Amino acid sequence: MSDHDDAWAQLTAYRASIDNIDAALVHLLAERFKCTQLVGELKAAHNMPPADPAREQQQIARLRRLAVDAKFDPVFAEKFLSFIVREVVRNHEALRDVETTELRTGGEDAAG
Amino acid sequence: MSDHDDAWAQLTAYRASIDNIDAALVHLLAERFKCTQLVGELKAAHNMPPADPAREQQQIARLRRLAVDAKFDPVFAEKFLSFIVREVVRNHEALRDVETTELRTGGEDAAG
Repeated sequence: MSDHDDAWAQLTAYRASIDNIDAALVHLLAERFKCTQLVGELKAAHNMPPADPAREQQQIARLRRLAVDAKFDPVFAEKFLSFIVREVVRNHEALRDVETTELRTGGEDAAG
Repeated sequence: MSDHDDAWAQLTAYRASIDNIDAALVHLLAERFKCTQLVGELKAAHNMPPADPAREQQQIARLRRLAVDAKFDPVFAEKFLSFIVREVVRNHEALRDVETTELRTGGEDAAG
């Protein structure tokens, strides 16, 4: 095999591992969003605010520590969490809006 | 327990699961970036382009299918992959720049 063929064979092998990891990531994210969906429903039902800055600070600090232990860039770990949390907060706000609309159409808070 | 206490106990339980999932995600991301670091080094050594649009399209289509099977939002799965790939391409470009600098300081391509 040429040097070029070797490089492509190696690239293909790395990509197979990346694809396996991505499948695991998607399935874990699916589970994570199931949890945050339940959190969103709970918060909406009990009129808790969608965002929780103190909890987010704890999560950031913990993930940065875990990243360092795993020899992973803590800055990117924090960016990753922020990316996920933005999506979660969007979902929670949408849930809260649905709850509010349901209350209004039920006549319990018709004035808004 | 009051209804409010129940809600907080439930929230705490959901958060414990989210924290476990996040630890798994960070460790998987650490492995993924190890793989893409190797890909970056290989690409830089063989002068392959950092981005590969055809590969990315295949990855997007596959992750969307996996997301649907996992009852997960395929739009978010795609956004997630784009977010990761942007970081990977940034890393590959940085590696390529290092290679180029090394070549230059080695006198093999002094004119740039």
